[in-house]
Amino acid sequence: MALITLTTDFGLQDWFVGTMKGVILSINPAATIVDLTNAVPPGDIRAGAFALAASCRYVPRGTIHVGVVDPGVGSSRGAVAVQTKDFIFVGPDNGLFSWVLRKQKVRSIRKLDNPRWFLPKVSNTFHGRDIFAPVAGYLSKRLSFTKLGKSQDDYVRLPWPEPTFSQRMIEGEVVYLDRFGNAITNIPNDLLKPLGDSGAVRIGAKQRFPLTRCYSAVPPGKLVAVPGSTGFLEVAVNGGNAARLLRIRVGTSITVGSSKEAPSLNRSKAERL
Amino acid sequence: MALITLTTDFGLQDWFVGTMKGVILSINPAATIVDLTNAVPPGDIRAGAFALAASCRYVPRGTIHVGVVDPGVGSSRGAVAVQTKDFIFVGPDNGLFSWVLRKQKVRSIRKLDNPRWFLPKVSNTFHGRDIFAPVAGYLSKRLSFTKLGKSQDDYVRLPWPEPTFSQRMIEGEVVYLDRFGNAITNIPNDLLKPLGDSGAVRIGAKQRFPLTRCYSAVPPGKLVAVPGSTGFLEVAVNGGNAARLLRIRVGTSITVGSSKEAPSLNRSKAERL
Amino acid sequence: MALITLTTDFGLQDWFVGTMKGVILSINPAATIVDLTNAVPPGDIRAGAFALAASCRYVPRGTIHVGVVDPGVGSSRGAVAVQTKDFIFVGPDNGLFSWVLRKQKVRSIRKLDNPRWFLPKVSNTFHGRDIFAPVAGYLSKRLSFTKLGKSQDDYVRLPWPEPTFSQRMIEGEVVYLDRFGNAITNIPNDLLKPLGDSGAVRIGAKQRFPLTRCYSAVPPGKLVAVPGSTGFLEVAVNGGNAARLLRIRVGTSITVGSSKEAPSLNRSKAERL
Repeated sequence: MALITLTTDFGLQDWFVGTMKGVILSINPAATIVDLTNAVPPGDIRAGAFALAASCRYVPRGTIHVGVVDPGVGSSRGAVAVQTKDFIFVGPDNGLFSWVLRKQKVRSIRKLDNPRWFLPKVSNTFHGRDIFAPVAGYLSKRLSFTKLGKSQDDYVRLPWPEPTFSQRMIEGEVVYLDRFGNAITNIPNDLLKPLGDSGAVRIGAKQRFPLTRCYSAVPPGKLVAVPGSTGFLEVAVNGGNAARLLRIRVGTSITVGSSKEAPSLNRSKAERL
Repeated sequence: MALITLTTDFGLQDWFVGTMKGVILSINPAATIVDLTNAVPPGDIRAGAFALAASCRYVPRGTIHVGVVDPGVGSSRGAVAVQTKDFIFVGPDNGLFSWVLRKQKVRSIRKLDNPRWFLPKVSNTFHGRDIFAPVAGYLSKRLSFTKLGKSQDDYVRLPWPEPTFSQRMIEGEVVYLDRFGNAITNIPNDLLKPLGDSGAVRIGAKQRFPLTRCYSAVPPGKLVAVPGSTGFLEVAVNGGNAARLLRIRVGTSITVGSSKEAPSLNRSKAERL
Repeated sequence: MALITLTTDFGLQDWFVGTMKGVILSINPAATIVDLTNAVPPGDIRAGAFALAASCRYVPRGTIHVGVVDPGVGSSRGAVAVQTKDFIFVGPDNGLFSWVLRKQKVRSIRKLDNPRWFLPKVSNTFHGRDIFAPVAGYLSKRLSFTKLGKSQDDYVRLPWPEPTFSQRMIEGEVVYLDRFGNAITNIPNDLLKPLGDSGAVRIGAKQRFPLTRCYSAVPPGKLVAVPGSTGFLEVAVNGGNAARLLRIRVGTSITVGSSKEAPSLNRSKAERL
């Protein structure tokens, strides 16, 4: 199977995603295309980077991931393809792939500079359709990776906000707000295990709530923090919307400590992550 | 063909649906996946139950329907698969399938308790990806239904709000509001046939409008009730949004009678439905 | 490959699109279905017509395009299929296909009046599911076009708002607002070439901004006009939402002139478009 995924900010209101699929299928009628998400907030490269990092490994090896959150389309920003052990990533070279690549072994990086793999006419406003979709289509037909363009040493990187540790606390921040209003943080679930059922989470000065295992461990309408399905701690309201309730935004800081004495946060492990 | 449908409240804003598809295709690359809808209001089991009931029969026999509206994920709520004459339903055992199953002959009910068909690591917040998607993937590859887990006598049921009959009226309620603001009721179209073109519908004290055959049978902006495509009466505004105009909600009561004398509502037929 | 596309106002909130896909796959399990867009504003035939015109050519030849923006469903409006050199269009005969067909060579027009290709029971409110999806399903299985129904001389046409020319200016209007708040106009990119980098665009009395090649050619938050990916001039805000900022609507007028003396707008070429 030739699987191609899409992660874009094109939305579903217009024909943008549909034309990308049409272009791919024009080149490779046998391609299977899966939308990871096309509703990244417009131009929000970090949200797109997180979405890719949270989802890219739940697809078959060999999948081609096309990511397009591309506020600089038509300018001098580069276009790139990155090959790892399991996947190929195709899109603008603006940091969109840098978070997902933190955990992957990079094998090759190519600049997309060979117009042979583009649509004949390339617009300045829609490289998703004119460059990235056809490149993915040809790659899914086993185009050799090296034919895409010149080799390139690195790709543009966004800083990943690492959590910090004080003596008895982990301090992190919100990195993504999901459809349910759950606030996903940069604090890896693995760091929370030593806390067992004694974890206490704080957002802002007043809000303090337990770390537990599932949303419904607290009464409806109450705040809860749970080890999330992305591998990171998330803050939720059972049956409600935490982001709205607490006016959480990306960047809002969050603190996790122990509700008991002598927390045993595994700092050395954390520093390896 | 191995067809799998998805009916969830995961939305399209994030990667949730995309990862479910990736998991399914990792297990069965030949599966075809159709979204019935992924925009059930968050946690609204009744809306999901109605969506499934309204749509599940418009797919090939043998289809596997995955439904995930799952506010109790990670708690002690069960996970279930139900096999009927034509379909298999897979999801949380919280009533989500109970309306669609009212009209289907149930053959077997299995608790999903065999982790062999799950992802190796199961989160407490995303069983759609970790349990229901892989189970559907294996079923689409002809996994024997009996291998899913222990047999179970019944599934959780939501009460279906039956319409009631007074001497000359049917009294029902709104059970679903759609994208157009049309208010779908619990009154089966079949009950309305005896009224012919003499049907009169009432919502609240003042609003009274005709029962007719299509939206545009009344002038633009006017209220109308039509036999809907789900098999139930619906209230609409020609070219407008009835739910917004009348502030209709799920549960809003509605009355249908005859605008002439001597209505001949077929009560005995109604009681059989 | 049998490719079928969907362009509808059914949204993704409900099961409407999902049931259309289920119907198609029930008839032709080998069909590939691509959503061009299902989020045309409810009942907005012109928006649907523009979406189809902007996207239909980015799919393989032989594709069947199903379009359903159908406020008159169930009334006496016709149902139609139009065959061109490259595609077949299927949907209500209400003008939805008239803009895309401006640039295509029409070979045959058929009224959809043979219920053999419909679902057995046709509702008055959802011909997308009951008529257009099954017709597309059968066409994708090589049903002869002539068997659909009676030949028909023409299809319903919406007027296309041509731009006008005064001595030194092109006057056009906004025909579509996209997800990013970009305002797509009726002014073909080709008309703008003579302006080079001297183009000046005006919306309303005060707003005047440059015509340039990409969004990021102006500072963030600033207005810009660019030759758009649809082939028409569009107005945008770098990193922002032009429609919201300027309260642009479909129909808002826009003027393009030269910021230098002696503009050389190619009027004769324009008149040929």
